Amino acid sequence: MSQISDLVASKLRDIPDFPKPGVVFKDFTPLIADGPALRELVRDIAQRYAGSVDVIVGIEARGFILGAAVAYELELGMVPVRKAGKLPGETLRESYALEYGTAEIEVHTDAFQAGQRVLVIDDVLATGGTAEATALLVERAGAKVAAIEVVLELAFLEGRKRLAHRPVNAILTV
Amino acid sequence: MSQISDLVASKLRDIPDFPKPGVVFKDFTPLIADGPALRELVRDIAQRYAGSVDVIVGIEARGFILGAAVAYELELGMVPVRKAGKLPGETLRESYALEYGTAEIEVHTDAFQAGQRVLVIDDVLATGGTAEATALLVERAGAKVAAIEVVLELAFLEGRKRLAHRPVNAILTV
Repeated sequence: MSQISDLVASKLRDIPDFPKPGVVFKDFTPLIADGPALRELVRDIAQRYAGSVDVIVGIEARGFILGAAVAYELELGMVPVRKAGKLPGETLRESYALEYGTAEIEVHTDAFQAGQRVLVIDDVLATGGTAEATALLVERAGAKVAAIEVVLELAFLEGRKRLAHRPVNAILTV
Repeated sequence: MSQISDLVASKLRDIPDFPKPGVVFKDFTPLIADGPALRELVRDIAQRYAGSVDVIVGIEARGFILGAAVAYELELGMVPVRKAGKLPGETLRESYALEYGTAEIEVHTDAFQAGQRVLVIDDVLATGGTAEATALLVERAGAKVAAIEVVLELAFLEGRKRLAHRPVNAILTV
């Protein structure tokens, strides 16, 4: 593992039985609560994409945190992808499957300029449903997914497969 | 108005009848989508508190965006205040009144070290219900609200009155 993945691993906290019995949730609040760790993580992501992306997408809600900080560091704008009904302007919407039922996320129709290279940021890649729906929204809105960056990939859920040709980088894979 | 409040005013978009008929929503997605504007806004906030706060609280969800970028700039940690049920660890909870019913927000019980000086960041100060509940959470968790910073204050809703002695700064007041 790299130095940054060691740092991330040391700062994630296991919370048993959240959000339901039998699941061990990887809590990344200790990571972002540590100023030097947050700075190192954001710098690591930012240097990977400097000059090769035009705009950052943060996925509600935890993706807003790293997305905004990376956008700030790269002096780029940030576009929020939000749960349905939260964005006030005209939106595009995608549904994706949850364990029970479906969820819907949206992006503003006018969020991107044509052909912009988008870096999508979220905290965790699990089944890939949210990330795939986000990629589809970016593409329907006329932009291009340059990469999908996550802090933690749960490899056994094979979310990466759903993202097809789109480049994915995970800082830590478990 | 200052240069930064002019910039913010120029980037907010009025969305009529959102979230319900008769309300004009101030959409700040054009502000954060503009890289140089986002940078200028974050720098303005960060320089106001450099050296006088120890940790940043971002209020879910839009407060995460500026909160994270300001934390990054100041090399401080960020603590999320979230809607009830979203934080995985042991939490403190506060309720506040909405127009119809109540809402509940939480913070992790162990989010702060005793006496830490906290800067609370959100996008809008309206009735002050969310900000007051957040301040109470910070104080119950053993820390001190050094200031509450918002991009936009809707002065006619008198939210500032609910925040009592706690310092409030709004970049733009309408």
